[in-house]
Amino acid sequence: MAAFPTSREDLASQDRADPLAHTRNRFHLPAGAIYLDGNSLGAAPRAVDPKLGDAVARQWREDLIRSWNTNDWINAPTRVGAKIAPLIGAGADEVVVADSTSVNLFKLVCGAVTARPGRRVILTEPGNFPTDLYVLQGVARLLGDRVELRVRPREALPAAIDDETALVALTHVHYKSAERWPMAEMTALAHDKGALMLWDLSHSAGALAIDLNGAGADLAVGCGYKYLNGGPGAPSFVFVRRDLHDQIVNPLSGWMGHDSPFDFVDDYRPAQGIRGQLCGTPAILGLVALESGVETFQGLDMRAVEAKGLELGSLFIALVEARCAGFDLKLASPSDPKRRGSHVSFTHIDGYAIMQALIARGVIGDFRAPDIMRFGFTPLYLTRTDVWDAVEALRDILATAEFKQARFRLRSAVT
Amino acid sequence: MAAFPTSREDLASQDRADPLAHTRNRFHLPAGAIYLDGNSLGAAPRAVDPKLGDAVARQWREDLIRSWNTNDWINAPTRVGAKIAPLIGAGADEVVVADSTSVNLFKLVCGAVTARPGRRVILTEPGNFPTDLYVLQGVARLLGDRVELRVRPREALPAAIDDETALVALTHVHYKSAERWPMAEMTALAHDKGALMLWDLSHSAGALAIDLNGAGADLAVGCGYKYLNGGPGAPSFVFVRRDLHDQIVNPLSGWMGHDSPFDFVDDYRPAQGIRGQLCGTPAILGLVALESGVETFQGLDMRAVEAKGLELGSLFIALVEARCAGFDLKLASPSDPKRRGSHVSFTHIDGYAIMQALIARGVIGDFRAPDIMRFGFTPLYLTRTDVWDAVEALRDILATAEFKQARFRLRSAVT
Repeated sequence: MAAFPTSREDLASQDRADPLAHTRNRFHLPAGAIYLDGNSLGAAPRAVDPKLGDAVARQWREDLIRSWNTNDWINAPTRVGAKIAPLIGAGADEVVVADSTSVNLFKLVCGAVTARPGRRVILTEPGNFPTDLYVLQGVARLLGDRVELRVRPREALPAAIDDETALVALTHVHYKSAERWPMAEMTALAHDKGALMLWDLSHSAGALAIDLNGAGADLAVGCGYKYLNGGPGAPSFVFVRRDLHDQIVNPLSGWMGHDSPFDFVDDYRPAQGIRGQLCGTPAILGLVALESGVETFQGLDMRAVEAKGLELGSLFIALVEARCAGFDLKLASPSDPKRRGSHVSFTHIDGYAIMQALIARGVIGDFRAPDIMRFGFTPLYLTRTDVWDAVEALRDILATAEFKQARFRLRSAVT
Repeated sequence: MAAFPTSREDLASQDRADPLAHTRNRFHLPAGAIYLDGNSLGAAPRAVDPKLGDAVARQWREDLIRSWNTNDWINAPTRVGAKIAPLIGAGADEVVVADSTSVNLFKLVCGAVTARPGRRVILTEPGNFPTDLYVLQGVARLLGDRVELRVRPREALPAAIDDETALVALTHVHYKSAERWPMAEMTALAHDKGALMLWDLSHSAGALAIDLNGAGADLAVGCGYKYLNGGPGAPSFVFVRRDLHDQIVNPLSGWMGHDSPFDFVDDYRPAQGIRGQLCGTPAILGLVALESGVETFQGLDMRAVEAKGLELGSLFIALVEARCAGFDLKLASPSDPKRRGSHVSFTHIDGYAIMQALIARGVIGDFRAPDIMRFGFTPLYLTRTDVWDAVEALRDILATAEFKQARFRLRSAVT
């Protein structure tokens, strides 16, 4: 058995001194579980029950249609967008909540192609999150000759940006490896060639101290139900840099993106500003839950949030390497925290069965084919002793080969 | 004062004998209000509180990521779709819940254009619900030469269908006038010329006995938050006739429309069947509320539901004409119930102020520019005496010119 690099007591003492320790109380966490999948579905904020309860039992039930005004439903997309903005380094008028991440990707990719006439190449990497690839493929199929999708491996991608490139579309933190693209450098490379840069922040918003405006980013989308704790299938957010609002034309020109939706005129005239990225009637229940999720970040410095998540990830790596050596686990994430997001992946040929055994013990991570175990370290509700206990459970399972008997109850989980 | 065509006592006695009277108890209704805007936002079903409460406090909070399997979140779009199917004359495998009505229109319109190569015309009518027009304009703008949008007045529309027409896109019941298109006849006309027929059922699903398959309809979308009682901004539904599933390619090819989303492969391969119309991660909280809304129709015959809504509308017209004669109200809906949906519109030059005065008295309808007052007669939770009391309130307001003092508190409401 390998040496302990630290002790549980040391970690407990660090937890007590942690200036972010109080944020755990902003969530309901299931008793007896260590939840390492907040990168896939964030835990439920305590505030969501009363807030959603009010939305149903008073706003919908009593105020009914009047709530669009009296409870300001109509401005929920921009109101919640403005609360997401400081978490991603954006202006309050540059972010709006709407639709799903996939739908928002479609809008922005079409908008970028239209905004760069004469350029037809969209550049991305293989192994990007599937919906990003699928949506890009859908745009290319729909627009035919006007778009060419080029998929280049990470290491070849910077050199592949050229003066045919309309858009570079990348996911900031990789959903499997947690590898992080250097946002400012890649955005500058795209701009050097006259291309637009789109960041999918799904696996980083709410975990890293993102600075879209500092990086000069043009476009971004992100997921509401992972680190933002917005609930299952929460609506997504869209960022368009202020000076591009007029240029990024939304192809999904639904009535909520109209300049005057309640004039009920026959001709579409896009709303000024970020509202132009709206499409249909906003999903109020989803927005209310997402607002509670975003408010779990109230008063926090995202640099401190990022530092804690990365520290927990590094601690996990160190403990696994010390305690689980010899069991054929391979780190599938960067060991350098500066190149990593807030989750850590290890591969193992029996990864699926091991993850089932962990879940049966209440250590909830997830599995990605063919052999990846993912462990998410959400900074707001995990402790160093959680990390310790998770690694000890993993070690036990490996040492006793308990996983070989694990029943395969959970076929898959949503990223 | 004009004669009463009936008495309140007669109506109360009819209410007591109404075989649909018991469905009112499936809803929470605000005390002291007569809610005539369920065509815009349906009332809250009683079942929604415990169901949504369970989704948050047990499924999300306790089961967390495992709920995709243990609570069958992953199949919510097809499960709720299958429950909507009998309300619209569709097969259980022909309907799925996803996204907003606007987004679903975009999918189907693009899919129709792709399915009818060599035809570039999309035909619709002026004054269609704005989002329908805006989305069609968006598709035409995005696809350029491949699409021509032709907007023809209702009376000229049948003759405008020709062998250039790829798609006829109409709203079954008009959001202002409540005028109803004859679904089977128009679908047959479209098919005669080789065109596809798309119905927007937003203002009829849950109110009329729709028979999509009986009419041979190809495509349909509809709203979840009006007569289906799914809550504010509820997700929408999509219908694609079974034999068209392979032909109607979804341009919004997000991961949930993939044949094997959890394989996480790089290439999109559309799911067989109606699942191919999915895009991003399903909005679970909205789906749970919508499921409660759809379940308010459990055990009901839609022909009886339609008959009651039309009867209430006809009663309203008769009472208004008897009791409010001489006050310059003009019926803006067909008087023939067979040509009408479940709401009734009257115009008045002071319509806005009159509607404010009605709302101040708890009679909640809505107003549409320039001069239309809309009154929705949702069959599941309104009575004949509600109609009587609403007309008496209207008469009082007109007779005393009370509306001239009405404060304009409510700027607008969402259709």
